[in-house]
Amino acid sequence: VDLVAQTLAGDRRALARLISRVEDNAPSARQALAALYAHTGQAHLIGVTGAPGTGKSTLVNQMAKALRAQERTVGVVAVDPTSPFSGGALLGDRVRMRDLSGDPGIFIRSMATRGSLGGLAQATDDVVKVLDAAGFDVVLIETVGAGQSEVEIARTAHSTVVIEAPGLGDDVQALKAGLLEIADVLVVNKSDRPEAARTVRALEATLALGRSNHPEDGWEPPILQTVALDGTGVPELLDAVAAHRSYLEQSGSWTHRERNRARTNLTRALERELIDQLTRRVGPDALERWVDRIVAREVDAYAAAHALIEGQDPR
Amino acid sequence: VDLVAQTLAGDRRALARLISRVEDNAPSARQALAALYAHTGQAHLIGVTGAPGTGKSTLVNQMAKALRAQERTVGVVAVDPTSPFSGGALLGDRVRMRDLSGDPGIFIRSMATRGSLGGLAQATDDVVKVLDAAGFDVVLIETVGAGQSEVEIARTAHSTVVIEAPGLGDDVQALKAGLLEIADVLVVNKSDRPEAARTVRALEATLALGRSNHPEDGWEPPILQTVALDGTGVPELLDAVAAHRSYLEQSGSWTHRERNRARTNLTRALERELIDQLTRRVGPDALERWVDRIVAREVDAYAAAHALIEGQDPR
Repeated sequence: VDLVAQTLAGDRRALARLISRVEDNAPSARQALAALYAHTGQAHLIGVTGAPGTGKSTLVNQMAKALRAQERTVGVVAVDPTSPFSGGALLGDRVRMRDLSGDPGIFIRSMATRGSLGGLAQATDDVVKVLDAAGFDVVLIETVGAGQSEVEIARTAHSTVVIEAPGLGDDVQALKAGLLEIADVLVVNKSDRPEAARTVRALEATLALGRSNHPEDGWEPPILQTVALDGTGVPELLDAVAAHRSYLEQSGSWTHRERNRARTNLTRALERELIDQLTRRVGPDALERWVDRIVAREVDAYAAAHALIEGQDPR
Repeated sequence: VDLVAQTLAGDRRALARLISRVEDNAPSARQALAALYAHTGQAHLIGVTGAPGTGKSTLVNQMAKALRAQERTVGVVAVDPTSPFSGGALLGDRVRMRDLSGDPGIFIRSMATRGSLGGLAQATDDVVKVLDAAGFDVVLIETVGAGQSEVEIARTAHSTVVIEAPGLGDDVQALKAGLLEIADVLVVNKSDRPEAARTVRALEATLALGRSNHPEDGWEPPILQTVALDGTGVPELLDAVAAHRSYLEQSGSWTHRERNRARTNLTRALERELIDQLTRRVGPDALERWVDRIVAREVDAYAAAHALIEGQDPR
């Protein structure tokens, strides 16, 4: 709880240590998160997602710089599908972003995808909460929006920015379709390329088709153009995101998104706790013996789950 | 249960209808899956995954054709991050694959990523089980291996083929790192391109570095080269996958992977059932009132979960 007080007081080293504990799922992390929770709910959580090759990291970098120029403090959580196998060494962008971290108004954390997806989504959510409680005005959550998992992580944000780029292959085009649904703001990055106008038109057409599917009918996702390498269009992007925040607050959608996030968190906590309680009650051996019976095709997983919950003996 | 008997007897229309029910999570689907479960465990489940732009769909198509030439029956489950928003119209490859389906020895199903990730992983697993029970010799599970979710889906296969291609951007290169870990067989597709040799060397170097991390030390993932467009290298790929299957069986890893899959299925079934029971016990209103309190920052999700399980009144 010492780290909690120091974090709330603005101590960056305490913040970094607390985040490490949260990532490691240390026993003290749970209490710390509980103590911090009352201080959350102030930050604007912005998901930034897009297919590989769209220049996402560079744009996040520019957004962070531009927010700092507006004297707003920024936390960045980068969710990357690297692994212990790669050691993250391939991520030159991440290194560049760390250069920003001499500035106490910015804090960058790269999340490795160790462990399961559930673990990653939970850890990301927890780290975002710590940054929110620590008082950052904006938290940028960068995900490689190519998989459903990343989409789900981005979905927990208040505003989701989806990045596109001209000239990606068909396979990448197909990926985009799933992302358009969750976009509050669309960005065509690398818009200095000749094909950019075509990409914008294609997005406009797709958006027009899909309008009825958009969950919040009052908001029409704008399509912006940026060149992340030189920062072109970044101030306009921040304006669009700020406009989306105003829209959320005025329409009541802010509360709606807060409720959805709270419900997801509650369900995850319930699942974890209920499984823990059951395992303590029946013992880990009983679980493994039911696994044996499933492998032997004597019962299916649902029948085994019912039997376990009723306390039946596996043999 | 009529559909079950017909599916087991080889009726393709019954199979298609049963799969639709499973995908829709229809009430009858659960019993059908339970009835089919004793018939599963025969098919070789092969995950095929790779970053966008590697030519994955075309290669899966060629693998299916080559397996048919060996007189083996093939189910294909394509997990694509499309959505109702896109209607899947972008997926020209899928259309091409459907051409194969005049052949009764092949069955292709494209999974949309509707709903949550958990839902998708569960639905994919269930559809694979139906195809396994229906007697297909091989089930190919194609995923866009760019996200952790797709990696997890691929991980439930017996053998995982990871596809690379020369000349992809840095962002895509970074994605690959997470995939190498789960590769049983590595493929450099588009190997007629001049940069292919360099990609092979880079993979060899990365594999050599990461050897100690590979979960099954007895198996060294081979690196193959293919040109999916004309089928070059596809027979060798099938040989490598067959060799991996033999290795799994001789080393005991087949059983190990079966156990892992069974454990995952059991945990998912337990989570679903425990949450259902709790919701029935406390009522949906109690859940929503705890969500209110979480939104109000009066309690955090863990405290609310504990209170809910103990049957505490939210106000």
